[in-house]
Amino acid sequence: MPQALLVLNGPNLNMLGMREPATYGHETLADVEALCHAAAARHAMTLEFRQTNHEGELINWIHQARGRFAGIIINPAAWTHTSVAIRDALTAAELPVIEVHISNVHKREAFRHHSFVSPIALGVICGFGIQGYRMAVEYFGQLQSK
Amino acid sequence: MPQALLVLNGPNLNMLGMREPATYGHETLADVEALCHAAAARHAMTLEFRQTNHEGELINWIHQARGRFAGIIINPAAWTHTSVAIRDALTAAELPVIEVHISNVHKREAFRHHSFVSPIALGVICGFGIQGYRMAVEYFGQLQSK
Amino acid sequence: MPQALLVLNGPNLNMLGMREPATYGHETLADVEALCHAAAARHAMTLEFRQTNHEGELINWIHQARGRFAGIIINPAAWTHTSVAIRDALTAAELPVIEVHISNVHKREAFRHHSFVSPIALGVICGFGIQGYRMAVEYFGQLQSK
Amino acid sequence: MPQALLVLNGPNLNMLGMREPATYGHETLADVEALCHAAAARHAMTLEFRQTNHEGELINWIHQARGRFAGIIINPAAWTHTSVAIRDALTAAELPVIEVHISNVHKREAFRHHSFVSPIALGVICGFGIQGYRMAVEYFGQLQSK
Amino acid sequence: MPQALLVLNGPNLNMLGMREPATYGHETLADVEALCHAAAARHAMTLEFRQTNHEGELINWIHQARGRFAGIIINPAAWTHTSVAIRDALTAAELPVIEVHISNVHKREAFRHHSFVSPIALGVICGFGIQGYRMAVEYFGQLQSK
Amino acid sequence: MPQALLVLNGPNLNMLGMREPATYGHETLADVEALCHAAAARHAMTLEFRQTNHEGELINWIHQARGRFAGIIINPAAWTHTSVAIRDALTAAELPVIEVHISNVHKREAFRHHSFVSPIALGVICGFGIQGYRMAVEYFGQLQSK
Amino acid sequence: MPQALLVLNGPNLNMLGMREPATYGHETLADVEALCHAAAARHAMTLEFRQTNHEGELINWIHQARGRFAGIIINPAAWTHTSVAIRDALTAAELPVIEVHISNVHKREAFRHHSFVSPIALGVICGFGIQGYRMAVEYFGQLQSK
Amino acid sequence: MPQALLVLNGPNLNMLGMREPATYGHETLADVEALCHAAAARHAMTLEFRQTNHEGELINWIHQARGRFAGIIINPAAWTHTSVAIRDALTAAELPVIEVHISNVHKREAFRHHSFVSPIALGVICGFGIQGYRMAVEYFGQLQSK
Amino acid sequence: MPQALLVLNGPNLNMLGMREPATYGHETLADVEALCHAAAARHAMTLEFRQTNHEGELINWIHQARGRFAGIIINPAAWTHTSVAIRDALTAAELPVIEVHISNVHKREAFRHHSFVSPIALGVICGFGIQGYRMAVEYFGQLQSK
Amino acid sequence: MPQALLVLNGPNLNMLGMREPATYGHETLADVEALCHAAAARHAMTLEFRQTNHEGELINWIHQARGRFAGIIINPAAWTHTSVAIRDALTAAELPVIEVHISNVHKREAFRHHSFVSPIALGVICGFGIQGYRMAVEYFGQLQSK
Amino acid sequence: MPQALLVLNGPNLNMLGMREPATYGHETLADVEALCHAAAARHAMTLEFRQTNHEGELINWIHQARGRFAGIIINPAAWTHTSVAIRDALTAAELPVIEVHISNVHKREAFRHHSFVSPIALGVICGFGIQGYRMAVEYFGQLQSK
Amino acid sequence: MPQALLVLNGPNLNMLGMREPATYGHETLADVEALCHAAAARHAMTLEFRQTNHEGELINWIHQARGRFAGIIINPAAWTHTSVAIRDALTAAELPVIEVHISNVHKREAFRHHSFVSPIALGVICGFGIQGYRMAVEYFGQLQSK
Repeated sequence: MPQALLVLNGPNLNMLGMREPATYGHETLADVEALCHAAAARHAMTLEFRQTNHEGELINWIHQARGRFAGIIINPAAWTHTSVAIRDALTAAELPVIEVHISNVHKREAFRHHSFVSPIALGVICGFGIQGYRMAVEYFGQLQSK
Repeated sequence: MPQALLVLNGPNLNMLGMREPATYGHETLADVEALCHAAAARHAMTLEFRQTNHEGELINWIHQARGRFAGIIINPAAWTHTSVAIRDALTAAELPVIEVHISNVHKREAFRHHSFVSPIALGVICGFGIQGYRMAVEYFGQLQSK
Repeated sequence: MPQALLVLNGPNLNMLGMREPATYGHETLADVEALCHAAAARHAMTLEFRQTNHEGELINWIHQARGRFAGIIINPAAWTHTSVAIRDALTAAELPVIEVHISNVHKREAFRHHSFVSPIALGVICGFGIQGYRMAVEYFGQLQSK
Repeated sequence: MPQALLVLNGPNLNMLGMREPATYGHETLADVEALCHAAAARHAMTLEFRQTNHEGELINWIHQARGRFAGIIINPAAWTHTSVAIRDALTAAELPVIEVHISNVHKREAFRHHSFVSPIALGVICGFGIQGYRMAVEYFGQLQSK
Repeated sequence: MPQALLVLNGPNLNMLGMREPATYGHETLADVEALCHAAAARHAMTLEFRQTNHEGELINWIHQARGRFAGIIINPAAWTHTSVAIRDALTAAELPVIEVHISNVHKREAFRHHSFVSPIALGVICGFGIQGYRMAVEYFGQLQSK
Repeated sequence: MPQALLVLNGPNLNMLGMREPATYGHETLADVEALCHAAAARHAMTLEFRQTNHEGELINWIHQARGRFAGIIINPAAWTHTSVAIRDALTAAELPVIEVHISNVHKREAFRHHSFVSPIALGVICGFGIQGYRMAVEYFGQLQSK
Repeated sequence: MPQALLVLNGPNLNMLGMREPATYGHETLADVEALCHAAAARHAMTLEFRQTNHEGELINWIHQARGRFAGIIINPAAWTHTSVAIRDALTAAELPVIEVHISNVHKREAFRHHSFVSPIALGVICGFGIQGYRMAVEYFGQLQSK
Repeated sequence: MPQALLVLNGPNLNMLGMREPATYGHETLADVEALCHAAAARHAMTLEFRQTNHEGELINWIHQARGRFAGIIINPAAWTHTSVAIRDALTAAELPVIEVHISNVHKREAFRHHSFVSPIALGVICGFGIQGYRMAVEYFGQLQSK
Repeated sequence: MPQALLVLNGPNLNMLGMREPATYGHETLADVEALCHAAAARHAMTLEFRQTNHEGELINWIHQARGRFAGIIINPAAWTHTSVAIRDALTAAELPVIEVHISNVHKREAFRHHSFVSPIALGVICGFGIQGYRMAVEYFGQLQSK
Repeated sequence: MPQALLVLNGPNLNMLGMREPATYGHETLADVEALCHAAAARHAMTLEFRQTNHEGELINWIHQARGRFAGIIINPAAWTHTSVAIRDALTAAELPVIEVHISNVHKREAFRHHSFVSPIALGVICGFGIQGYRMAVEYFGQLQSK
Repeated sequence: MPQALLVLNGPNLNMLGMREPATYGHETLADVEALCHAAAARHAMTLEFRQTNHEGELINWIHQARGRFAGIIINPAAWTHTSVAIRDALTAAELPVIEVHISNVHKREAFRHHSFVSPIALGVICGFGIQGYRMAVEYFGQLQSK
Repeated sequence: MPQALLVLNGPNLNMLGMREPATYGHETLADVEALCHAAAARHAMTLEFRQTNHEGELINWIHQARGRFAGIIINPAAWTHTSVAIRDALTAAELPVIEVHISNVHKREAFRHHSFVSPIALGVICGFGIQGYRMAVEYFGQLQSK
């Protein structure tokens, strides 16, 4: 299996650190990327890190991941609650998927409590701020080292 | 009326034949296209066949179809259940629309039982594998020949 | 496998052509039967065509079909939405089933959007007027000829 | 227009007067028939009065009524709440329909509060015991005499 | 028991004949009153006929009816669907109540399908235009004459 | 009280042993009948055993049972979930009713979890295969012998 | 703060003692008023006691209470379940509000289980008959004396 | 068409400026009236401005508006969510209706998200504070001047 | 604060004037743009006017608006009802937002009655045809001039 | 009847005064107990006061209360919303039950709006802080003294 | 397989015979135990019979049953409707489970119509009073003797 | 802040490794405890690890944790979906809470999709098998070391 991870970020995450700091904190997406690379390096893995506001681009990236990555870490952001297309793309990728949310979605509006991704994910991490990404990378790292 | 059909495919259908063969079979989208061209040819029609993972691109194609095609055959895939925008584009196109699904959506998850497209379509065909496309082409072919 | 099809029609379809032409068109059930026989003949198949307003009679016909027909084409009409008994009979018959509706049920009252038959059918065709029957016969014909 | 009415009674009404007198009273279906004939006679109309426990039979009677009766008075009993087939038959008959219930269905179980027939009926009368039939006959009688 | 009936009309019925004739017809509330008086006279009864757009006034009239009338005929109009207070007033009056609707409410918006009054009424008449009032008066008249 | 039981079977049960053995087992309805007669004989009771796919026939049988049987054992099969008419017939029969299901309906589709019969039955037995019938017969047998 | 309370009563409470004694008891609204005055006197408070069947009158009374009373005790009766206007008036009054119901509304029809007033009230007392009024007066009395 | 507008205000709006300024601001209803007169004057229209806490009074005003005004601007306040009677009165008036809300009702309690008036209004304006009234007057003014 | 407004238009609005004139009128999006520029000019404001069928493009435009515009006027069209991503982008932009709809969405299909944007908008204007855009521009203009 | 009351407290009430003072105040459960004893003494009653975090222990206490106490005052806390077992125990105890809540549950999360206990209680008191207990004791005291 | 059965009883069943005899009859839990032992003895089986009001104790007993009993007969009483923990314990026990209810739960409150246990049970018996236990023991006895 | 963590396990987790290995894996709760101690040691923290099948015991443990632990890691198992009492206890503890589930609850029955704990937790981890516990311990460890 390849020793690389794909970390995908959905809409508005490019605004991280600028947008609603009470909910999402002050760190930027660049901080998240650095955190992920550091964690991957500790487990001798490489990592690609991407963000898009275009659902179609995200779907294309997921398709291309088949056979090229050991796993996908995805923060689908708003699409979590609305996109069947991303769910289907992830199923088609046939890779283990970890769903990450920076905020605890269960404390927020009712429409954020349902995820189309969770039922096809390996696991879900939410509420730990940007540390959730690191936890996901490390989980794959541990798996790798077994 | 023009003697051409537009066949449109929504997200993840580019993965056909590679993705979940138990649900979608082993044939690829190229096979579907060939099947459609053959059927159209038998009825002396031409046919354009497209797929996209970008909702916006699909909407643009639908807009451009007005007055240029005799009808639209669409497999909206995941967008069937979530996209009001595609429904509105199809209404705006003022063309007869046939909705096709490869799998029988009524055997799958509850969220796949509702279609935003069906109420504005001429008819719906689902569960016949890729033959559903052929059936749709032939329906338009018969209409044409009357 | 036997080379015969069973075409079954539910309640009120004997009124076809007389009842609500805006919804169901002007052709009668005899026209439908002729259309089906013609299509079957083109694929070297035979076909039995029946209609009843008695649920029990329809159930009996379905039971008798086991092992005697290659497939069932059924327009359950109003029973689509209310009869678990017909669904169970079709399951017991262990034959491929195609569900046909003359009108596009998704354009009509909400209670017509749910079908007890669809989840146990091979496929569903709706909205093509009486041509839906022909499409179903031809699908079985193609299957036969493989 | 013909000067005859068709009065139709659904399942279990043959038990009237024997069954649950607290809900349905002590009069029998023969009493109802007599009451209807008397009312029709007062308006110089004739009347056919029927009851069945077979949905298919009721549907057939409704079909045969087209063009032969001035109107239908129907107490669909339990089928009120479950039969789309009878609703469709009544629509197909293209006659004015009056729905009658002996008991006040709104005082009973929640599933008796919905009627598939009411939205396609001319009017509904419920809760007046067997007098509801008489009121329906007289309404048609008045209409006739205008 | 007193030989008088109280006929009560809810909001907007003063506009009858002027408002939405496709739904309510061309006859005015004065026509309804005349119809009711004529029917009452045929059964040797008297009748008070009132209309109000004030819920409180209607409640007061119902309270005053206790022991002074043989029964109440009420067309609660829009309050049918929203007023628990009128329901409670009618219960408190301890008189037989007939609920009348000019239009067939079951053909109209979903919110008009529920009535707070029906479960505490003796019976319900709807869809017969202003004849529904006459039918209600005659029912009480027949009761009276037994 | 008469020393006889009436055992009634709803739609598709004539297919028992032939249909979906994973759900319903390999024994036929004749086996069920033999089992019931044996159990009745052990308690010195007689027993009539019937099956129909016609709701109207079942209703007629229930009506005729009044005063002629000590109790009714009924497996309403698919009608359990859809027939108010059978519920009303059973209420009209004024006999103790035991509802039996061969499979555990609570393990199956959601629409099989609701029964129109249960609220008017004495008791319900489900999931014990065809032994459920025997248990019902024996319950009546014990009652009889007290 | 002023040493006076306002006790408000909604529709049909003028019928208390005359209406449905099984639910509401035999005491009249005059008895309730006497009970309230006695309780207020024991805490050296005065009290105004009013009832209306006009929602608009009740709203006006609530508006006039601002700054003139120490608190409002209200039995909104049927309006509890239907009036947003009274809720808004109470919010606008900016006074502590106690909601009282004579009967235990949770034992009655489902539509009586929801109150528009409770979420903006200080507290709710229900089921203690007319003693609930006294308990509310005494609560304000105790508050006053602190 | 007459050159006058009718501006109607529902319950509690007489408290404007005194009640919940965080939601409704500090301006009084007199300020709103002045604002409306100024806007009407700029378009050479006249305007009647009224408020009531009595639903019946509001209904009467609406009835009297037929043929006397060019349009109705209404802030139904709490009755927005509960009054079918006002909706029916507005329909009966056969005038263009603009619905105005001072606050953005979509930010508030769920029961404020539904309006009985919106489906029969020409348009809806909400969330602009008292400027919403001005916008409505100007819309009619522009219409007038075409 | 900058003296410029951003006017954003969602999917299918490029078809305005060509599509469903009964619902949307005969004016084109160019007409809307001209109308907006004229209104802005009257208030000494500038205005950027854009339309896209790509959700991602709309999100990018919203992000870029932070700090560069005085406010956003958005007609999210079909995305109103389905896009959490646009709602989140608008929240992240930290600008006042006015939501505009050409048609009165409350008169149309039930799924058009819910908006993900309304709860985070300053205000909502719907049903005034393309004049709604002008009203929104003028509202910002008035705000500006204070 | 015995002259003693049983006051029962459900889970987490041992934390009273320590936990969420904004919701529950600063007084401890010992303060509540003292308040109850003082109130009981004023009415010459005795009182047992208990708290448990074990549902089973609470059920046992309720069972033992039969015939030994004049009534039960219960604050079921979280179990209010989830425990059918406590409801059934209270029914089995055949004693008058008063349900008390310190906070106004109607102002809190939706799942706290339903109580399994209320429909079988004599009455309910909520929102008065710990004074609610005193009001309940005094109600029983008044009853006693009649 | 061991020749012993475990019979478990949930909360409040220790009150059997004392509590609500109209619903549960006059026999005590000791009578039920005797009935079970007698039935087991007739089939040469032994039986342990337990009751608890502590969910945790019931869970422990179920855990200990693995491999020590041939099957579990459980009347979960109130926990039927609320305890996922007992369902999970029964699943973990990997033994055949029969669910018994003394009363016919389908005649009672709506919340008693759902069981968390039924979907993981072998079968369900309800409504036969304490005879239901005997029927369950005999079912296991018959199984044993095959 | 104390340098210790409390790890709490709900019902049936003592069966881990024995129960449903397809869902929960083959490792026992002792393995989980060892894993947690090892992870805590790596971060120089201590840890208490407990399991109970008694809700009351769990609540007591949570209460005792206030001020004695740096945080709580809880796998509430079945109580996740049913216990408001545990939610309230966790709120009362005023400590950061991490909710862990071994399986991905979103792939299982619908009733497992809702958690009463999640809205009051800091974060949620599910689907990573017993590694989820380690991830939670390490999160607290990292927090500690900042």
